[in-house]
Amino acid sequence: MDIPVLKRLLAANDAVADQNARRLAQWKIFTVNLIGAPGCGKTKLLEASLERLRGKPRAAVIEGDIRTSLDAERLSGYETPVVQINTEPFGGDCHLEATAISGALDMIDLAKTDLLFIENVGNLVCPAEFKVGEDAKVVALSVTEGEDKPLKYPLAFRESELLVITKIDLVEHLEIDLDRIEANARQIHPAIEVLRVSAKTGEGIDRWLSWVFGRLSKKRPEA
Amino acid sequence: MDIPVLKRLLAANDAVADQNARRLAQWKIFTVNLIGAPGCGKTKLLEASLERLRGKPRAAVIEGDIRTSLDAERLSGYETPVVQINTEPFGGDCHLEATAISGALDMIDLAKTDLLFIENVGNLVCPAEFKVGEDAKVVALSVTEGEDKPLKYPLAFRESELLVITKIDLVEHLEIDLDRIEANARQIHPAIEVLRVSAKTGEGIDRWLSWVFGRLSKKRPEA
Repeated sequence: MDIPVLKRLLAANDAVADQNARRLAQWKIFTVNLIGAPGCGKTKLLEASLERLRGKPRAAVIEGDIRTSLDAERLSGYETPVVQINTEPFGGDCHLEATAISGALDMIDLAKTDLLFIENVGNLVCPAEFKVGEDAKVVALSVTEGEDKPLKYPLAFRESELLVITKIDLVEHLEIDLDRIEANARQIHPAIEVLRVSAKTGEGIDRWLSWVFGRLSKKRPEA
Repeated sequence: MDIPVLKRLLAANDAVADQNARRLAQWKIFTVNLIGAPGCGKTKLLEASLERLRGKPRAAVIEGDIRTSLDAERLSGYETPVVQINTEPFGGDCHLEATAISGALDMIDLAKTDLLFIENVGNLVCPAEFKVGEDAKVVALSVTEGEDKPLKYPLAFRESELLVITKIDLVEHLEIDLDRIEANARQIHPAIEVLRVSAKTGEGIDRWLSWVFGRLSKKRPEA
């Protein structure tokens, strides 16, 4: 009983995700679906990004949380439109679905947007199962979470084009081998790209933004 | 359509959870359902616990992961039976359900067990929705995850009797206010108990085990 229901839900989601993708393609907006565990540093990575972008290129953010607009508040003040989605009224969903993104896109001036960052609900499992219309999923994993996470939560790493290892400023206080994290991620997804960043010190943020700009320019080869 | 299906699934789960609870009550086994985000230190907390217990009282562990038996391997060698549940064959479930625990209980000598630790799949959202037959849910939150998590993931904190704040040895390297974490947790669940621990340094582990022993003795008032 459950599996046909789940398949139907996923198929319905994917149809709306495809609509979102077409709509974003019309405006040539490069869209990242950023996933990762609670507290892995997704919002902090976006803060550091928006701080540097300051509207060039023009970014927009969709924040997904079960409850509160705390993350949207953190991201206000960067000359960047931020739309908060709360999933609690919809059953406390543990992930963003395409329909929620469709509604959020109505609230963004797409003609004035080059980049769209979607910060998913903090969860290393369920968001990986749902397309929302993004060009790329990116998974964030903090150095405090341990080396084994790609092996234990494989779908998030298989579905993501890029792994951003966050909070590398803490490495010196931990027993953690970043090469081992990378090797485990590549065991699951050999082609995954990997970047190491600290939004606190700024290390690696330029490389992360270069990756974003590279993907944006592929979407806009004429620009 | 979705909500009746979800309600039916939850009702079916709760019926099996009640069976599990009755079975555990017959043997007067105090059972903790330990939930928390990936990498928040659940396994490390259990390692530190089993290291101290060394069979007195007699513990058993059920490890829930989507994939791998890495956690069960970490917990072997403590004179404690460990059963690994992998949810990947069952659709990659992001949480443990009561049926999985029922099967795992068959693999444990309940007559020789006083305490049962169930380590749920690393996820601060979905495990909070499912009873599995436990006496108490306990939520682990690491200091690296930030102060806002109780507000953003309220169900896990509302459902848990105890919040264990983990990795407090890292506080000096972070901008984090532990009192703020506690205040946010109590805003969601005024009666929640809170402990601060570091499994690395051992700080607070005795208080955590005292909490466990206190709950065990309530279940066995004659002992």
